[in-house]
Amino acid sequence: MAPRYAPNLRSRLPVVALLLEACFILLFAFFVDISEGIEDFPHIYAVFQDVHVMVFLGFGFMATFLVRYGFSSSGFSLLVAAMTVQWAILMHGFLLVPRGREMIAVNMQSLVFAEMYAASSLIAMGTMLGKINPVHLLIMALLEVTGFIVNQWLLQTLLRVQPLQSMMLLHIFGAFFGVMVSCVLYRKGIEPVHEKEKLHSKSGLFSMLGTLFLWIFWPSFNSAYLFSLHKINAQFKTVCSTYLSLAVSCVTATSISVLCSSKGKINLAHVQNCMLAGGVTVAVAISVIDQPWVAMTTGLSAALISTLSFRFIKRHMQMAFDCHDTCGVLSVHGIPGILGWCIHLIIQLTISDDFTVAVRFAVYHITILLTTVAMSLAMGTITGILLKWKIWRPPQNRKCFDDQAYWEFPHLAVHK
Amino acid sequence: MAPRYAPNLRSRLPVVALLLEACFILLFAFFVDISEGIEDFPHIYAVFQDVHVMVFLGFGFMATFLVRYGFSSSGFSLLVAAMTVQWAILMHGFLLVPRGREMIAVNMQSLVFAEMYAASSLIAMGTMLGKINPVHLLIMALLEVTGFIVNQWLLQTLLRVQPLQSMMLLHIFGAFFGVMVSCVLYRKGIEPVHEKEKLHSKSGLFSMLGTLFLWIFWPSFNSAYLFSLHKINAQFKTVCSTYLSLAVSCVTATSISVLCSSKGKINLAHVQNCMLAGGVTVAVAISVIDQPWVAMTTGLSAALISTLSFRFIKRHMQMAFDCHDTCGVLSVHGIPGILGWCIHLIIQLTISDDFTVAVRFAVYHITILLTTVAMSLAMGTITGILLKWKIWRPPQNRKCFDDQAYWEFPHLAVHK
Amino acid sequence: MAPRYAPNLRSRLPVVALLLEACFILLFAFFVDISEGIEDFPHIYAVFQDVHVMVFLGFGFMATFLVRYGFSSSGFSLLVAAMTVQWAILMHGFLLVPRGREMIAVNMQSLVFAEMYAASSLIAMGTMLGKINPVHLLIMALLEVTGFIVNQWLLQTLLRVQPLQSMMLLHIFGAFFGVMVSCVLYRKGIEPVHEKEKLHSKSGLFSMLGTLFLWIFWPSFNSAYLFSLHKINAQFKTVCSTYLSLAVSCVTATSISVLCSSKGKINLAHVQNCMLAGGVTVAVAISVIDQPWVAMTTGLSAALISTLSFRFIKRHMQMAFDCHDTCGVLSVHGIPGILGWCIHLIIQLTISDDFTVAVRFAVYHITILLTTVAMSLAMGTITGILLKWKIWRPPQNRKCFDDQAYWEFPHLAVHK
Repeated sequence: MAPRYAPNLRSRLPVVALLLEACFILLFAFFVDISEGIEDFPHIYAVFQDVHVMVFLGFGFMATFLVRYGFSSSGFSLLVAAMTVQWAILMHGFLLVPRGREMIAVNMQSLVFAEMYAASSLIAMGTMLGKINPVHLLIMALLEVTGFIVNQWLLQTLLRVQPLQSMMLLHIFGAFFGVMVSCVLYRKGIEPVHEKEKLHSKSGLFSMLGTLFLWIFWPSFNSAYLFSLHKINAQFKTVCSTYLSLAVSCVTATSISVLCSSKGKINLAHVQNCMLAGGVTVAVAISVIDQPWVAMTTGLSAALISTLSFRFIKRHMQMAFDCHDTCGVLSVHGIPGILGWCIHLIIQLTISDDFTVAVRFAVYHITILLTTVAMSLAMGTITGILLKWKIWRPPQNRKCFDDQAYWEFPHLAVHK
Repeated sequence: MAPRYAPNLRSRLPVVALLLEACFILLFAFFVDISEGIEDFPHIYAVFQDVHVMVFLGFGFMATFLVRYGFSSSGFSLLVAAMTVQWAILMHGFLLVPRGREMIAVNMQSLVFAEMYAASSLIAMGTMLGKINPVHLLIMALLEVTGFIVNQWLLQTLLRVQPLQSMMLLHIFGAFFGVMVSCVLYRKGIEPVHEKEKLHSKSGLFSMLGTLFLWIFWPSFNSAYLFSLHKINAQFKTVCSTYLSLAVSCVTATSISVLCSSKGKINLAHVQNCMLAGGVTVAVAISVIDQPWVAMTTGLSAALISTLSFRFIKRHMQMAFDCHDTCGVLSVHGIPGILGWCIHLIIQLTISDDFTVAVRFAVYHITILLTTVAMSLAMGTITGILLKWKIWRPPQNRKCFDDQAYWEFPHLAVHK
Repeated sequence: MAPRYAPNLRSRLPVVALLLEACFILLFAFFVDISEGIEDFPHIYAVFQDVHVMVFLGFGFMATFLVRYGFSSSGFSLLVAAMTVQWAILMHGFLLVPRGREMIAVNMQSLVFAEMYAASSLIAMGTMLGKINPVHLLIMALLEVTGFIVNQWLLQTLLRVQPLQSMMLLHIFGAFFGVMVSCVLYRKGIEPVHEKEKLHSKSGLFSMLGTLFLWIFWPSFNSAYLFSLHKINAQFKTVCSTYLSLAVSCVTATSISVLCSSKGKINLAHVQNCMLAGGVTVAVAISVIDQPWVAMTTGLSAALISTLSFRFIKRHMQMAFDCHDTCGVLSVHGIPGILGWCIHLIIQLTISDDFTVAVRFAVYHITILLTTVAMSLAMGTITGILLKWKIWRPPQNRKCFDDQAYWEFPHLAVHK
């Protein structure tokens, strides 16, 4: 399916983006109002800012490791997140907030939720980075958020899953959605590792910076939901558990990376990606972790599995399933998410003394996971097929992972 | 006026800076005291830190887009801001705080104000970046702050303008002041675009980082004043409006940038600069925006006008008015500021039902703008003439936009 | 002692790190619990995040000025800090918290302490950066923290020093410990300035970024302890004093750097390092500074002494004492720390009206300093001798200051 035309964005990106923007403004005019929620403003605002930095700076800069794709990684992440938060405020308000006839409220709580939805779409986007154009990314992100919110609605309405727990499935949903899109859109012509898909010493530092912001503010990300509900004690425990888990994760990821290397050297990509795994796993199993050593063991096992999968499964996925995952999202969010789900199940089974209750919980818990995975794979397939449509003008193979396809470089022009 | 001597800073910068510093310490010893204001310390401190990051990191790194001027952009911004905050604490205390015989108080509120004054001087500095030496920048910044505080004093004393509203004119004052200085100091010899005045793929990412910090913390910047007055509800509305406006601004700036480009590519400078326009416009019109859709429309129109002006007016200004504006401050702060002023006027006229009151408000509102613009242009002219004095040793044309004129590079020396 | 074998980390780093990690998890399982302290969670959390950014991002990126050592500077700082905080929680809990038979509590207060201990070990690490491998760094950091906490225990138990004051000696302890290790491990074969030990225009900007985060959040660092004790008024004064001191420091460091340069140019390393000196000095003298002008004078003298020592003493130390200090830790933390100690002494003597009390205080104050310095030099010597052991496989001279000794670079491999 190698396209021949040059990927000129002029007739696509502004039309799609401005049209959507106009629709959003119209919908906001009729349905949305700024009104305070139950939150204590100054407190939630500080935590919101941490999440804000993660979503708009952390994810974007984490993806700048691609040496010739830095502008796109940070710029497109910003564009996608800025669109997604608006759509998420609307969707969340329509589907998940019991309102009666009132307007949808914009407040710190709904902004925190919107940013978490944006995070799930940025996770999904990580699989396709460098291989599709920004119009693709925009459509993919909006569909991902739609799918995820519908999935939450299903879980909360049919299975009576707690909002916090269903929100934390964002890592699993985002990762599987992205992987599925990547499978559907696989380019046969492309070599196993694209010549421009590599790290450079300077791009590595930008990526380190983004990753560090994610790592540092992850306790805020995991506890932001609880903050907005004023559950001080729960949020305190979440912050401490996440902190300890991430510290152990970081040490483990570095160690395993050295162990896996034949020359005994550290791979920066392993460290950067897999040291976040502890935060993902704790997020999914959040409601049952309250001992420091459990959090630390979780962090250790998450980083172990994540690093091994990053090292060995990523290449295998491409060979066996025609699935190329640019940022290794499956290893960083998908598999550690599943691990967190398992840890939740195991701890719950351990502490329940009644066999019937335990079995009932296990069935319930498995249903939640299956629904989410099925939903994400289904939405991923639909999105992938939609994006295959040639009207969106995908970039040629040799223009992949290259800023010059989308960005003006003044020094390349004869006259500026 | 091309100077021939080499710009050795040794006999200028330390003398000016240390002398000023000694004066400041003396003045602080006699007139200033650390004493708590009306604020609730922990809350205002969190918001203050956001503003602090914006002023000392955001503005400086935003200007690192100049490929060979990164050290200067960040280093001189830091130096100028560090001097300006001290001077602003004194000036603000003397002119704008009713004190009786008490000492001027240093507290979170006065630090927030000082940082906002520093921001206005950094905005003005953006027009001259790369073309004058740090001693020039220092003098220019201190005069700008003096002028702006005197302007506030005039507005508050004669026209009884509210402190918040007069403070938010900082964007308009800073931009017009800077443009005027730039006109007066225009170098005839310089080519339209200096060979070193360009963006590089790595310097672009540093600049992206600074811009993102500005963009992310802008809601704090707009609401910091209200925070310090404990107006929780107003600050909450300001945060939400600014957030929505900035999100729409970002999408619009990217779209318009593609539309304006003949090749259908995005210009990073447009995106970085013009996505901030939404924040500026909301800041100036802050007291009348309380609907989400109004905030979003404001963001859209601000980014639209800002991007168009950045693309077309910047070059025109240089041709027609001999005014070279390095960072496009007029398009990013000046014009969106005026737009905010217009939006304030329009909304206020729309909601007032009495014709006489409406006309009176319009006259009042126009007087505020004219006073501010006149004051900024006058101070800019005076400052420009003062800086033309050859004692300050301006850099030669070929040393413009170049770190090597001011910074030691060890690897260039034979022996370190 | 130039070693011949290649520094393959495979049989050292993972074994040491994972073994220690397993021990930590075991100790946490038996002795540590998550339980809230006396703190007000949301407030202390915001300040904790500032300290968190400083320790995990600030220190690491500040050290990226070494042009070919960016991955190592940021990556190893992260690894070391992540290990150190765990060990510090345990050690602090065992030695410094009166507990009876209860478990050691993990809460915001203990995490703030743990991060401050990590900061002291990162300061010590600054002297050895680039010259030893990560296993060395890990052992050195853990021993440094052990020594510092034992020193605190001695001071608090024998001399009844206040916890805050003994904690703030972290700058002095870290610096002297590091310098001593550096003396013991001095490599004779190495040339005065290693060919890779230099700054580059891009690595300088990364370093600027890290430094700015340290500089911006330093008021939080100095006041975090007081925050955790709910001493609102004291923490407010500390924030304002540190802020003013740092502002003056920044101006002074730039000025002195120009004065010291024969060409009248600014040295970025001087500015970056020495503008932090004001924060260090205020930290050590924190309990007696409550006038703005005193804080500003402290900042001025700290930056003056720090810049002069950075410019002249650093080279001298290497010539005379065989002590190579990569990051100039002695000039940035050691000497300004001693200056702070002197200022504390002088102010205390000035305000005491009874001669006997004054003498008694002076003796007491000198004892504190001597104990700390003796302890740090002793621990430094022991650590240095331990690290000389060839089992740790130090890198060869020509592999110093080079990422390629420890990190995989995909573009250097034939096939990835």
